Amino acid sequence: MGAKRLDGKALGLKIEARLAERVAALKDAGVEPHLAVVLAGNDPASHVYVRNKQRACERCGIKSTRIDLPNDVSQDQLMQVVMDLNADDSVHGILVQSPTPTGTDELEITAAINPAKDVDGFHPVNLGRLVMGQTDGLLPCTPAGVMQMLNDAEIDLVGKKAVVIGRSRIVGMPLALLLAQKGIDATVTIAHSRTEDIADICRSADLVVAAVGRPATVKADWIKPGATVIDVGINRVADESRENGSRLAGDVEPAAAEVAGHITPVPGGVGPMTISMLMTNTVRAAEANF
Amino acid sequence: MGAKRLDGKALGLKIEARLAERVAALKDAGVEPHLAVVLAGNDPASHVYVRNKQRACERCGIKSTRIDLPNDVSQDQLMQVVMDLNADDSVHGILVQSPTPTGTDELEITAAINPAKDVDGFHPVNLGRLVMGQTDGLLPCTPAGVMQMLNDAEIDLVGKKAVVIGRSRIVGMPLALLLAQKGIDATVTIAHSRTEDIADICRSADLVVAAVGRPATVKADWIKPGATVIDVGINRVADESRENGSRLAGDVEPAAAEVAGHITPVPGGVGPMTISMLMTNTVRAAEANF
Repeated sequence: MGAKRLDGKALGLKIEARLAERVAALKDAGVEPHLAVVLAGNDPASHVYVRNKQRACERCGIKSTRIDLPNDVSQDQLMQVVMDLNADDSVHGILVQSPTPTGTDELEITAAINPAKDVDGFHPVNLGRLVMGQTDGLLPCTPAGVMQMLNDAEIDLVGKKAVVIGRSRIVGMPLALLLAQKGIDATVTIAHSRTEDIADICRSADLVVAAVGRPATVKADWIKPGATVIDVGINRVADESRENGSRLAGDVEPAAAEVAGHITPVPGGVGPMTISMLMTNTVRAAEANF
Repeated sequence: MGAKRLDGKALGLKIEARLAERVAALKDAGVEPHLAVVLAGNDPASHVYVRNKQRACERCGIKSTRIDLPNDVSQDQLMQVVMDLNADDSVHGILVQSPTPTGTDELEITAAINPAKDVDGFHPVNLGRLVMGQTDGLLPCTPAGVMQMLNDAEIDLVGKKAVVIGRSRIVGMPLALLLAQKGIDATVTIAHSRTEDIADICRSADLVVAAVGRPATVKADWIKPGATVIDVGINRVADESRENGSRLAGDVEPAAAEVAGHITPVPGGVGPMTISMLMTNTVRAAEANF
């Protein structure tokens, strides 16, 4: 294990402790930061995610309200819930837990959220601001968490090669924009399932970000010695040695830790940072509103 | 001159001829596509650009209205002009010629345009849709023009390496997103002024796009034999052999044409395509409205 572990859980708690101070200041001024979480249907993983987010709110002193909707909620009903939350001045952040039930249009719902309350950072206006180099707004949480981890570890990317594997609207694309922005100045390659020579491309990179959603996709021998490896994947894989028969695994082969200079663990790496960035966005939204 | 020239002027005229048919159909249905161009100040280059855009409107049968404003127009006045055009149902496209006068905030003006009338494709909502992989809306004109030229020349980029040099909100960033999208599937590297080893990065690429704004920045020996070279630069350089003492030059060294498989000339390459894409967006906006 040559690589230094980038501990997202510890950094996330540090960030949340600083947020708690900002929340206290807002409360002193008569504003109670308030996150509304909309949870439609009964996907067990979604329930776990929402519970984790509400616990983070408690740690920061942020009020959270959960709106439970049945699995057969209609698009119109979901849109109406969002409209009501947009109109509610006591609500600073709105999060509609993904995925929304079959038959609903998640992108339409995302676009209906007031961009100033879009604490997931998924609204087209907030993504568009990244294309424009405007990074002072509500940033998508996972990419923002990755940037915070790189910053905290003082990893200088100016002129260096970064490869982002995955081109989703949630992680890959916005993270590529953030890494290429002025002031960070990485030379960023967006790679994906159709990329040829992915191993060689990774071997030339000082930073490899894996956001593909398949366990152990990035091999240890793809990593340049000393490079930084950020593993965004959270995959459940079979493991008979565990009581429940499974464990979480990242998108990167564990042996990459022998080669890399810095690496994020799974779990305990990017995952907790994503939640801390959600808290950051909620406090930002409350401060902007105030 | 080994490379095949990608003739943007000819392709642009072909596209405009097809648009003229769509315009005629709209007029038959009682809708006259209408572009409003706001020109503030007396920058000579801006006047040339606006004239060229209005001429393209004439070729397509699109009505164009030019709103001239003084160089000392205030931000509030400019914003009011945009609001009035947003509210005017007879106007389908709004273009505020860049740059707006010193002291005005161009990004605020861009964000004030109704996204459905944003025929430049610069509104954050329209840029954000690119991050989301939604490319059926109003696309920024220069990147869209580059994509059309690649498509017309049947250049297959699936899995291939593309390098975009330049990270502006107008060209580099949105073009990188378009090249990386599903269905195009290039492996895209965003390079810029801080990039190390730019020559080597280009030498490995099947497509090099230069959007830096400095003449002859990309050297002939950076190009892999047979690669496609797209030159977005339009730079005025001294040339004593010319009557007016200058000529237009691209960002790519002319000798690159000896090495490349395909190359765009300057002038007559990307420039005319940008205008044809503006016309395309205006017709799209009118059709969507109808």
